[in-house]
Amino acid sequence: MEKKLDELKDRLREVEDLQLVSALLNWDQSTYMPPGGAAARGRQMSLVARLGHEKLIDPAVGRLLDDLQPYAEGLDPDSDDAALIRVTRRQYDKSVRVPPRLLAQFNEHGAASYQAWTVARPANDFKAVQPMLEKTLDFSRQLADCFPGYEHIADPLIDYSDEGMKAESVRTLFANLREQLVPLLKEVLSQPVVDDSSVHQFFPEDKQRAFGERVIRDLGYDFNRGRQDKTHHPFMTKFSLGDVRITTRFQEDYLANGLFSTIHESGHAMYEQGIDMKYEASPLAHGTSAGVHESQSRLWENVVGRSRAFWGHYYPGLQELFPEQLGDVSLETFYRAINKVQPSVIRTEADQMTYDLHVMIRFDLELAMLEGSLEVRDLPDAWMARYESDLGITAKDDRDGCLQDVHWFAGPIGGSFQGYTLGNIMAAMFYRQALLAHPEIPAQIGSGEFGTLHGWLTDNIYRHGAKFTANDLVQRVTGGQLTIEPYISYLRGKFLG
Amino acid sequence: MEKKLDELKDRLREVEDLQLVSALLNWDQSTYMPPGGAAARGRQMSLVARLGHEKLIDPAVGRLLDDLQPYAEGLDPDSDDAALIRVTRRQYDKSVRVPPRLLAQFNEHGAASYQAWTVARPANDFKAVQPMLEKTLDFSRQLADCFPGYEHIADPLIDYSDEGMKAESVRTLFANLREQLVPLLKEVLSQPVVDDSSVHQFFPEDKQRAFGERVIRDLGYDFNRGRQDKTHHPFMTKFSLGDVRITTRFQEDYLANGLFSTIHESGHAMYEQGIDMKYEASPLAHGTSAGVHESQSRLWENVVGRSRAFWGHYYPGLQELFPEQLGDVSLETFYRAINKVQPSVIRTEADQMTYDLHVMIRFDLELAMLEGSLEVRDLPDAWMARYESDLGITAKDDRDGCLQDVHWFAGPIGGSFQGYTLGNIMAAMFYRQALLAHPEIPAQIGSGEFGTLHGWLTDNIYRHGAKFTANDLVQRVTGGQLTIEPYISYLRGKFLG
Repeated sequence: MEKKLDELKDRLREVEDLQLVSALLNWDQSTYMPPGGAAARGRQMSLVARLGHEKLIDPAVGRLLDDLQPYAEGLDPDSDDAALIRVTRRQYDKSVRVPPRLLAQFNEHGAASYQAWTVARPANDFKAVQPMLEKTLDFSRQLADCFPGYEHIADPLIDYSDEGMKAESVRTLFANLREQLVPLLKEVLSQPVVDDSSVHQFFPEDKQRAFGERVIRDLGYDFNRGRQDKTHHPFMTKFSLGDVRITTRFQEDYLANGLFSTIHESGHAMYEQGIDMKYEASPLAHGTSAGVHESQSRLWENVVGRSRAFWGHYYPGLQELFPEQLGDVSLETFYRAINKVQPSVIRTEADQMTYDLHVMIRFDLELAMLEGSLEVRDLPDAWMARYESDLGITAKDDRDGCLQDVHWFAGPIGGSFQGYTLGNIMAAMFYRQALLAHPEIPAQIGSGEFGTLHGWLTDNIYRHGAKFTANDLVQRVTGGQLTIEPYISYLRGKFLG
Repeated sequence: MEKKLDELKDRLREVEDLQLVSALLNWDQSTYMPPGGAAARGRQMSLVARLGHEKLIDPAVGRLLDDLQPYAEGLDPDSDDAALIRVTRRQYDKSVRVPPRLLAQFNEHGAASYQAWTVARPANDFKAVQPMLEKTLDFSRQLADCFPGYEHIADPLIDYSDEGMKAESVRTLFANLREQLVPLLKEVLSQPVVDDSSVHQFFPEDKQRAFGERVIRDLGYDFNRGRQDKTHHPFMTKFSLGDVRITTRFQEDYLANGLFSTIHESGHAMYEQGIDMKYEASPLAHGTSAGVHESQSRLWENVVGRSRAFWGHYYPGLQELFPEQLGDVSLETFYRAINKVQPSVIRTEADQMTYDLHVMIRFDLELAMLEGSLEVRDLPDAWMARYESDLGITAKDDRDGCLQDVHWFAGPIGGSFQGYTLGNIMAAMFYRQALLAHPEIPAQIGSGEFGTLHGWLTDNIYRHGAKFTANDLVQRVTGGQLTIEPYISYLRGKFLG
């Protein structure tokens, strides 16, 4: 059995390594590749992806898994070997259900659709991408239909990013959140308007960058096992557990953009950097779901990075760096500026109170399209209507309306957005639990010390990688199921406390 | 037949793409990879290399080549299809002769040996790498022995980088060159000593970089299909014909280092950028040999970049950029400084007159080790003895002696060095031919115009890629065989004219 397990691990290492190589091809494309490299890069990315996929769905992997099943059943379910066999089994079973031809066509379509979007968005031309989006919807349904027996057609798609979650349970959770969030938001908005002009000044990029890198180094992002580069859209990517990179962007007339995007991506990266090295190049060497991943980026960005305690420590240094801009701005004024609540049209720039409303709009529209109750051609209007009803504000055009997010133009319709709000909910649950274990954490944050929090997160979440599903992890860490109460209580305390 | 040819092309595209992906993994390792990424990167590079090799030696490729043979014989030998089948046949026949296990072991040993060298060189510790070098010699012989029937054991190794060249013919050529070069060098050295203090001042890196990039843009290096980054050792690499990158380094106390290394690498890159796009991702989409490649880097670096005409155009701009350093230095003084002839111990820093002596020492020592007339343990002394007899100077230790070049510590012993001098010889032949066709070229260089020369090189050399072997190319371009006369005549004219 040991020999079979070793053979399985060898095969999985190659699958993983090819995925990691794909990630480098993509990183280079977004950071340093000259324009002339685009055509070949697309071809090379799909070749490497295909080779990795072929190695995963190799029938020999299925036979090894079958042979190892009795062995796995005799193991402690919490053991690494049991987890490896369990997680691989799920991935394998999912992967073999999707015909390689469908996958290749969908990927090819995704690349073309992304290209079209990069042109259509600045041109505010929804009509130009509507046929592609219709095809995307069709492909998404075909993909879901590879998993017959689902309760909701979105379930298999949600399962890709948040394994174990279903449309119905997410819908219920989101409905509850909405019910609590909307009156809370009203209450916050009835307060005097916050002056955030202090962060809307000129802040030279090089200084922003130096400050951000100092902060994330303090948080625990390891630059010996990562680096930061600039891209149009910030992201985290990984080429091994020893090489977890982030990207950022800077807006010289708006300090908060670059700074919090840097902290956000470092949260994703610390999760990956914290995975136990023994899982290197195995299916366990990943954050376990989109939601848990987002819980870490949002925890570091918002719960820590937008807290009073945090700025109590960092603000004097920031003032020193930008004496002309911030020398006369009080800590309190700055703190309020970076936490200003104001309905807006762009999700990625939304404040903590309205962010989830953006996410829920997208989640509902995805489901409606998949169900067939919303036609793609009606998406722009539906989008505007929901922004009007939910946020009381609409974008002036589709560019900042239904064309604003890349997700539907690069991957499936379905399963792309729920993770963001699941992440917020889990971040509050995890943070509460960390405070129960270490009540000194807020005081430490106020001294610029993050080791206890980082250590607790590593111990309870990061090191496990994909060993436990999100639901299992929540259960293990908090002793209960997913609940919005800690999140609502956190928001209420922060914005109305 | 068309269908078979298409299938062959499809297979070769994957082989090529995997090689190009390997190149990106390597580029990233040398430019931006954090230290923590090293272990996984080695693993991923060997995986991708192995997959590419497996696809090349797939028996299906052999069958396609067999089936296409009668078709190829009916084609014009100068046609692209005939060339593709011919070049692929040679590569395939060579590749299938080498047992994959030997290749894997040699690659693994090469990586370990390289790592050991990076430690041993700074520590001046030849003994530490001697056993590895002995193993390298053994592997090199095993590799050569995959090709029984050779005249000299180095022949198969030379053939890897300079196809069609043999130890005997190179030896003869080099002996002739030596015979002419040594008295010429003596004559040059009998002249008054050149003062090169002007280039040994402080030159800030950012200005050096800006100047170098302006120069190579003028020469014709296309930044839309490439970019320049910094590495410890400069190199050119390629991820497609649309993405040909170079790297450079700067020495702030020595202007010539960064500048001429930038021009040198841009010469390699212009060769690759100039290959006809119709060969993209095929075995023809490469410079045809190490020698021809080096002819282009050396032509641009030395024949053009170290010429009086060139600096007649660029020197005023350089003075403007560095007024304190060069404001009072005349063009003639500067020109002499960058062309100072002086025997030294480091090959890569050698002047045009002594460079080939460095190369020939290595070539002879390689052959002696392969033949068994020189033991690896005696290499340090043999190295010193040859420098003493050939250049009248010896390094103070092995660090700048036999440990100075990476070649034997990363690849085979044999075939690694002859290309440098073959390149010098061919550069002079090609340049003479270009002048015959376009006598206006030197005047154009004096006006900072390089289009005619670049166009002639593209037309006669670059666009063909690997379609013709070096010998065939020399024949086509110059109408004759490889000869040292143009090179000697060029050196004599430049240094004693």
